Amino acid sequence: MTIRDIARRCGVSVSTVSRVLNNHPDVSEAVRERVLEAVREAHYVPNNSARDLVRPQSDSIGLVVRGIGNLFFSPVIHAVEQAVDEAGYTLVLHQIRSGEDELQAAASLARSKRLRGLVLLGGCFDYTPEDTAALDIPFVCCTYTNSFGTLGRESYSSVSIDDQAEAYQAVRELTRRGHRRIAVLLDSVNDHSISELRYKGYCRALADSGISLDPALVAETGAFDLASAYEETRKLLERTDFTAVFVIADSMAVAAMKALRDGGKRVPEDCSVIAIDGVELSAYTIPTLTTLIQPTGELGDEAVRILLDMVEGRAGNRHVQLHTTLRPGGSVRTLTP
Amino acid sequence: MTIRDIARRCGVSVSTVSRVLNNHPDVSEAVRERVLEAVREAHYVPNNSARDLVRPQSDSIGLVVRGIGNLFFSPVIHAVEQAVDEAGYTLVLHQIRSGEDELQAAASLARSKRLRGLVLLGGCFDYTPEDTAALDIPFVCCTYTNSFGTLGRESYSSVSIDDQAEAYQAVRELTRRGHRRIAVLLDSVNDHSISELRYKGYCRALADSGISLDPALVAETGAFDLASAYEETRKLLERTDFTAVFVIADSMAVAAMKALRDGGKRVPEDCSVIAIDGVELSAYTIPTLTTLIQPTGELGDEAVRILLDMVEGRAGNRHVQLHTTLRPGGSVRTLTP
Repeated sequence: MTIRDIARRCGVSVSTVSRVLNNHPDVSEAVRERVLEAVREAHYVPNNSARDLVRPQSDSIGLVVRGIGNLFFSPVIHAVEQAVDEAGYTLVLHQIRSGEDELQAAASLARSKRLRGLVLLGGCFDYTPEDTAALDIPFVCCTYTNSFGTLGRESYSSVSIDDQAEAYQAVRELTRRGHRRIAVLLDSVNDHSISELRYKGYCRALADSGISLDPALVAETGAFDLASAYEETRKLLERTDFTAVFVIADSMAVAAMKALRDGGKRVPEDCSVIAIDGVELSAYTIPTLTTLIQPTGELGDEAVRILLDMVEGRAGNRHVQLHTTLRPGGSVRTLTP
Repeated sequence: MTIRDIARRCGVSVSTVSRVLNNHPDVSEAVRERVLEAVREAHYVPNNSARDLVRPQSDSIGLVVRGIGNLFFSPVIHAVEQAVDEAGYTLVLHQIRSGEDELQAAASLARSKRLRGLVLLGGCFDYTPEDTAALDIPFVCCTYTNSFGTLGRESYSSVSIDDQAEAYQAVRELTRRGHRRIAVLLDSVNDHSISELRYKGYCRALADSGISLDPALVAETGAFDLASAYEETRKLLERTDFTAVFVIADSMAVAAMKALRDGGKRVPEDCSVIAIDGVELSAYTIPTLTTLIQPTGELGDEAVRILLDMVEGRAGNRHVQLHTTLRPGGSVRTLTP
């Protein structure tokens, strides 16, 4: 139905319809009534404009993705999109870079798009109540929790794995297979984020295996990109000897395996590699990456379930912890003493 | 501003405010006026509801992505999202699987979200005017054109590479280096899509090099997924001999390289591999994949530029063709006769 159809139906000109719709005074009351009646007949929508002023709601759910090009997020994004769609809401996607402030981005998106709720895919682990004050709609932290912050557990929702415990499992897989000179490739040991948590798991696994921590074996990339992972692995090779590397993310592990090969080390003959995340492509590296696979579809589904329970008033904030599954690839070998 | 604030400001109960906003009859006219006045003061928004009935416009631009988990699309999605955002519009993302109907998805999204325009990222190459009739808003085909259809060039916009010409270049790179037994790994030779176009480029390059086509060298996966690419490469190895493979997409090439290795062939010593697309990860395969890199950022930027020129009435439909850049990796070797 266009303005032209309305004009035809009422037997008036298009500009007359336009004047009515823009509340111009120079239209007779009879014509105005006729046009508005035709508009109503053509396309009934409930007049919620007054109510909307008080509860500026829409049918939109926001998804703020922190970390563009993070392969691991792709299937989670898809799961969130599908779950939001199936529930009859509209997904508004906003991607930001790893260094950007997801809460600021979320608050601004919530305002401009009048969101009903938010899924934050990737974010900081150290929120304070002040940080989240600007977010006055329900939100779910997806793939992370507030491990380093002061925000109370009752003030936000989350769905994630236990990063420290899963990293512990990955490193224990290496110690069980006889490795003791185990390097770690991560973003940072004290970024108050996923990297620090997985680093703690690494440290705890070493301690529980009676291995003392050697700082030379800790390679910090300062970023999650492939190029930095490659560079830092090359430096690690120049710096010290090791028989295995625990890499905190699959994509970084692909780059690390390349760096090991370019540095003259065969995987797994000269060096074993294990990671966490599980992206489809790491099943096709040479050798296949041994990794702990996160339940990506479930992470997305669960995030939307928690969020809509809040949006629709069925439940309050809650926290769900999911588990990884070991994919035994070909990148870890057993050391024979 | 909540319904509670309005109630407090007017000195009435929350349920009274609710009754006013829901047009219940059991409220005195004086109270009704007071509440509506408070609502108006609290939050003025222009009343466009009547106009919206006739011109159902929003600030939303749709992005229908056909092919979930297509790594090559990630940087294009990001570019589109950023360009749409910078122009002050809202991006509504909808992802569908490769086999699904993007026009149906687009038409339904356009209706339900009252879109101003659409970017179709990935789609069929054989539209008829009837196919696109349901799309009454501007749309841009991103990464493809209507090479096999009857839809006139003036009826749609596109930004893409010349798939046939680029495939021709890739295969000529192999013939220049002395290869004559060149296999091709693709989705289908007659899918009326990117695969068929790139296959035509392969055929033309062989013909121009005086090489006759051997059907045994043509491996059809019937899909773009890694698992099928792996399987078909294994079958190809069992079926015939060849010194090189042209793979129509980087991600499939990663799986093909794995299949070659698992089948006892070293890349590039025993078999060369070249592809088209350029995804970040293929720079970290062992060896680095030699590929023709598509200008992903430019594809996204240009799609939004073309679309907004139409949405904002500055220009009509147009077609832009971009070019790839050869990334010389380590997966192609020169045969010495």
